[in-house]
Amino acid sequence: MRGLVWADVFAQRMPDLAFRQWPDVGDPARVRFLAAWEPPHDLAQRFPNLQVLFSTGAGIDQFDFAALPSALPVVRMIEPGIVQGMVEYVIWAVLDLHREMPQYQRQQAQGDWTPRPVRPARERRVGVLGLGSLGQAVLARLVPFGFDCAGWSRSRRDVPGVRCFAGDGELAALLERSDILVCLLPLTEATRGCLNASLFDRLPRGAALVHVGRGAQLVERDLLAALDDGRVGEAVIDVTEPEPLPPLHPFWRHPRIRLTPHIASMTAPESAAEVVIENLRRFEAGEPMHGLVDRARGY
Amino acid sequence: MRGLVWADVFAQRMPDLAFRQWPDVGDPARVRFLAAWEPPHDLAQRFPNLQVLFSTGAGIDQFDFAALPSALPVVRMIEPGIVQGMVEYVIWAVLDLHREMPQYQRQQAQGDWTPRPVRPARERRVGVLGLGSLGQAVLARLVPFGFDCAGWSRSRRDVPGVRCFAGDGELAALLERSDILVCLLPLTEATRGCLNASLFDRLPRGAALVHVGRGAQLVERDLLAALDDGRVGEAVIDVTEPEPLPPLHPFWRHPRIRLTPHIASMTAPESAAEVVIENLRRFEAGEPMHGLVDRARGY
Repeated sequence: MRGLVWADVFAQRMPDLAFRQWPDVGDPARVRFLAAWEPPHDLAQRFPNLQVLFSTGAGIDQFDFAALPSALPVVRMIEPGIVQGMVEYVIWAVLDLHREMPQYQRQQAQGDWTPRPVRPARERRVGVLGLGSLGQAVLARLVPFGFDCAGWSRSRRDVPGVRCFAGDGELAALLERSDILVCLLPLTEATRGCLNASLFDRLPRGAALVHVGRGAQLVERDLLAALDDGRVGEAVIDVTEPEPLPPLHPFWRHPRIRLTPHIASMTAPESAAEVVIENLRRFEAGEPMHGLVDRARGY
Repeated sequence: MRGLVWADVFAQRMPDLAFRQWPDVGDPARVRFLAAWEPPHDLAQRFPNLQVLFSTGAGIDQFDFAALPSALPVVRMIEPGIVQGMVEYVIWAVLDLHREMPQYQRQQAQGDWTPRPVRPARERRVGVLGLGSLGQAVLARLVPFGFDCAGWSRSRRDVPGVRCFAGDGELAALLERSDILVCLLPLTEATRGCLNASLFDRLPRGAALVHVGRGAQLVERDLLAALDDGRVGEAVIDVTEPEPLPPLHPFWRHPRIRLTPHIASMTAPESAAEVVIENLRRFEAGEPMHGLVDRARGY
């Protein structure tokens, strides 16, 4: 399905390029570019002349970097469809939590008509972990609502209207002022298990979590404990480890967890193909590609 | 509580004005201005020298106009707090429906991890009934998401980026292209019962309703029938008739109705007092007041 859309776009935009769709790869030695989500483990042996590996999604944690030639450029997918989907999901989740919709839903189930005071957006502190293209796009849409917005990233960033924190030394300062915490971090060795008891302890009591990073960043038993004793008030979770989440997992029926099946953001095949075409042009022209991964940082 | 905030604001901003709080009205013959939600029925007799009646909310349908002197100016509350709350609520509801969150919530209850394709916002047609200050503010925030937006009002309006329909003759055209219909109409004799079977019949099959107007606009049995046979897919309802909704009402437990207790928008007392002060200045200066009601139209 996605392959067919790509074939169409490539046929129109780069008719001279031999576009092939897995498993019909032709002569493997002639394959210079590969776009994949989970490529075969023997990639380097199978395609000895590979020049660029493109991820078809925003993440690259599904790649086994140890098995990839160290000089092979790896490119993440940064395309408008991914960004738009993520912006919609996070704005929905933040408004859902800000306007106490989980509480009203529990009241509805009990036939309880009790209006609660509306807290102005300026008194609601939202913190975003990760200030890459997704984090910045989300914040650009949150700021006009009047939320008190802050963000954190490993290296320092500057985002208009947003108080920015950077590095391990400033993480606690971001957490302490986050009534709603949004995780948009990439999965790396540094972020694996980062949403844990010690992080939850630093949030204001009763804070809410929106988790749209990667499942392996969340220590599930720590979240359940934090929900049980009120340190965390509500959680909206779109990513789990593993996916699909097993049918008997406690997240499914937890009254304070809202679970969606990794749908926050999906690559739109048309614009994804366009992004790869533009990156191929840049590669041939010796210009930097959009989304080129820094392997030392892991994203 | 609200009265205390108003007393503070008036003391600071208009120290020469004698501000009194119900029921401590002093000499009723000296009362020139009254701000109220549901004033006493014998208003005209009780305050013979009343010059302006201010509603403390956006609506004025709670007033008994037949009992009010015909020349008494009546002013609706149009203030930033009301607008901001309504924008938050409607953006939340539209994103909730656009991203099929009610469906995912039913899946969660069944332990069902099934991602559904993400439909781009440009393919989602949103229609807003009512293009006053609230409708326009809501549309200004919906347009940047890329939704295919249209609006309808009794008299013709022009809203940037929005296809505008006007009058009874163009209502069907708006309805036919509304995957998500938002009702932001004022309650008048013309809009009482307007959300009925004949309106639901004109929507695309499976369309969703967001009702943030007034409870008496909705014919409840028609909505229940339309939900039952799939003409309407989902409904998000913030206003009912009566309020509170009785405990055994079918809306509470309906699987395709999301019910909130009239919390979309609430007057923020500080800015409401400021708006009244500005209107008092305008009244004394002979300038038109913001929110002055046209009694012939009823809003």
